[in-house]
Amino acid sequence: MKAPVIRVIHCGLGPIGLEAVRLVLTKPSMKIVGAVDIAKEKVGKDLATLLGLSKPLDIVVTDKIEELFLKSPADIVIHTTTSFTEIIYSQLGQIIEAKTNIVSSSEELLFPALQAPELAHNLDMLAKQKGVTILGTGVNPGFVMDTLPVCLTGVCTKVTRIEAQRVVDASTRREPLQRKIGAGLTEEEFRAKVAAKKLGHIGLLESVALIAAGMNWKLDDITETIDPMMAQQEYRTDFVTVAPGRVAGLKQIAHGIKNGTSLITLDLRMYIGAENPHDYVKIEGTPPIEVTVQGGVAGDQATVAALVNAVPLVIQAPPGLKTMLDIPVSRIVS
Amino acid sequence: MKAPVIRVIHCGLGPIGLEAVRLVLTKPSMKIVGAVDIAKEKVGKDLATLLGLSKPLDIVVTDKIEELFLKSPADIVIHTTTSFTEIIYSQLGQIIEAKTNIVSSSEELLFPALQAPELAHNLDMLAKQKGVTILGTGVNPGFVMDTLPVCLTGVCTKVTRIEAQRVVDASTRREPLQRKIGAGLTEEEFRAKVAAKKLGHIGLLESVALIAAGMNWKLDDITETIDPMMAQQEYRTDFVTVAPGRVAGLKQIAHGIKNGTSLITLDLRMYIGAENPHDYVKIEGTPPIEVTVQGGVAGDQATVAALVNAVPLVIQAPPGLKTMLDIPVSRIVS
Repeated sequence: MKAPVIRVIHCGLGPIGLEAVRLVLTKPSMKIVGAVDIAKEKVGKDLATLLGLSKPLDIVVTDKIEELFLKSPADIVIHTTTSFTEIIYSQLGQIIEAKTNIVSSSEELLFPALQAPELAHNLDMLAKQKGVTILGTGVNPGFVMDTLPVCLTGVCTKVTRIEAQRVVDASTRREPLQRKIGAGLTEEEFRAKVAAKKLGHIGLLESVALIAAGMNWKLDDITETIDPMMAQQEYRTDFVTVAPGRVAGLKQIAHGIKNGTSLITLDLRMYIGAENPHDYVKIEGTPPIEVTVQGGVAGDQATVAALVNAVPLVIQAPPGLKTMLDIPVSRIVS
Repeated sequence: MKAPVIRVIHCGLGPIGLEAVRLVLTKPSMKIVGAVDIAKEKVGKDLATLLGLSKPLDIVVTDKIEELFLKSPADIVIHTTTSFTEIIYSQLGQIIEAKTNIVSSSEELLFPALQAPELAHNLDMLAKQKGVTILGTGVNPGFVMDTLPVCLTGVCTKVTRIEAQRVVDASTRREPLQRKIGAGLTEEEFRAKVAAKKLGHIGLLESVALIAAGMNWKLDDITETIDPMMAQQEYRTDFVTVAPGRVAGLKQIAHGIKNGTSLITLDLRMYIGAENPHDYVKIEGTPPIEVTVQGGVAGDQATVAALVNAVPLVIQAPPGLKTMLDIPVSRIVS
């Protein structure tokens, strides 16, 4: 029995969204039936043009998602617009109303009950009512600092503490990431941007919350600090030059706290020139487990993979707002 | 809303079964309502006696499982008898007839369609008819050489080959394992026992099959070799003495083959005196992923943990014969 081809609409055609389009184009089990973006310079163009392909895909980018659903019903929307539940809430509502499943790279949607419990509740109710499933995922948040640690506890009889560290050499990453970590700023500029919430990785708090949910730990508090990693020498990337004494990137640490103790510690370092990039997970418990991913799991490619690989699992899952702990083990999709 | 306590029956009270009992006794979410074994010296005894506990548990071991189900209905059976689907088939049938879910440490049950496709089909049909779920799991097979590699591909856009290696220092393990790997034998004795299928790890072929299913790879063949690791010096454990030139343990290698190429290679080495024990997974693809578990995930404890942690997930899963790829990410249960 051959499974029917999954009809996909892409909503959000920024760098991650376009990478997702590229990946879906390689998947025989999927077919793109629509593409949505609000940017004037994208609307009306064939998707192929945005990808730099010569042959048209016969998918014209629209900013009218409701009309699109009427014309081209889909099984799922791959949603890659912005990070915050409050901002995407009405976008998601429109998609759910059209009885279409959603997999999203929105970082807060990994565990939306943390920042927006009421909106999360509404999305869950609406999704159940319309019979569709919503999932937020990616590589970070979504895998290396949350799902993977939880998954490792499946072979433990006891867990007392969880720690994860991710060190990324930002010089190998795309420009928005190099900007987002403050590369090239003075320390003062960096700290001002952090205070204004204009700098930093989004989703670390959600990763803590997802782990806590998986462990069934009721935390008292989740805290986060963002500090600069200073350059000791000059670095030049394709996008930015960092003088010695300027900011090379960030060190962002989140704690999940219970009775004054950090039960969950997530330590994310993304900076230009980082040596020995890696992912590391430590489960303190019985048996203790220590895992290292040599070189770390590469960022953008892996995020897009996580989104696209989750597609069939999201479609098959029971309706509602789900997390990575509700669906089966994600794996590469054909 | 507090979840109701899960009623558990333990079927099979060997070393793994008794460890599972010990673990369930620590879980507030579970309650043991029955215990089954066929060994005459166990039947009629209080479970506490078998565990060496002074205070009775008021669970008397029985060899009459059908009577037990009538007297003490349960939500799930933790099944830890033997490795082979053919042998456990009628046991499982009785449990399914009693409308009770099953989580089993039987190695073949990880992927029973490999060795016993007809029996697997029958179990699946019967389980669906009776509305219960069956799952085989453990640490190996069940996690480090199958579920974990599959799980890592969830962040890959492309996978061309999967490799896993597990090196276990058998001197730290229980006596049956030291015997099962041939420690202390001559090479000739070892090879005779391998030929008679009386020696070796069961489940490596099933791990290959599970990975292949996860990857949606239709393999042409699954092959396996079992060779001795010879002792270079004398080793003494609590259970066995190995002279230099005698067998210290085994090296068991399985391949999943397609078009003459090994797409899946699983390399298991269990021997006394193994240096640098570890688990290692390599995903060749985009991005490539290389993971090392320092020291390796300890065996028996982790198997028992995998069984008990899967309990709520098995109960919640749709009916049928399932694999680790069908249920959500396992995690420690309270």
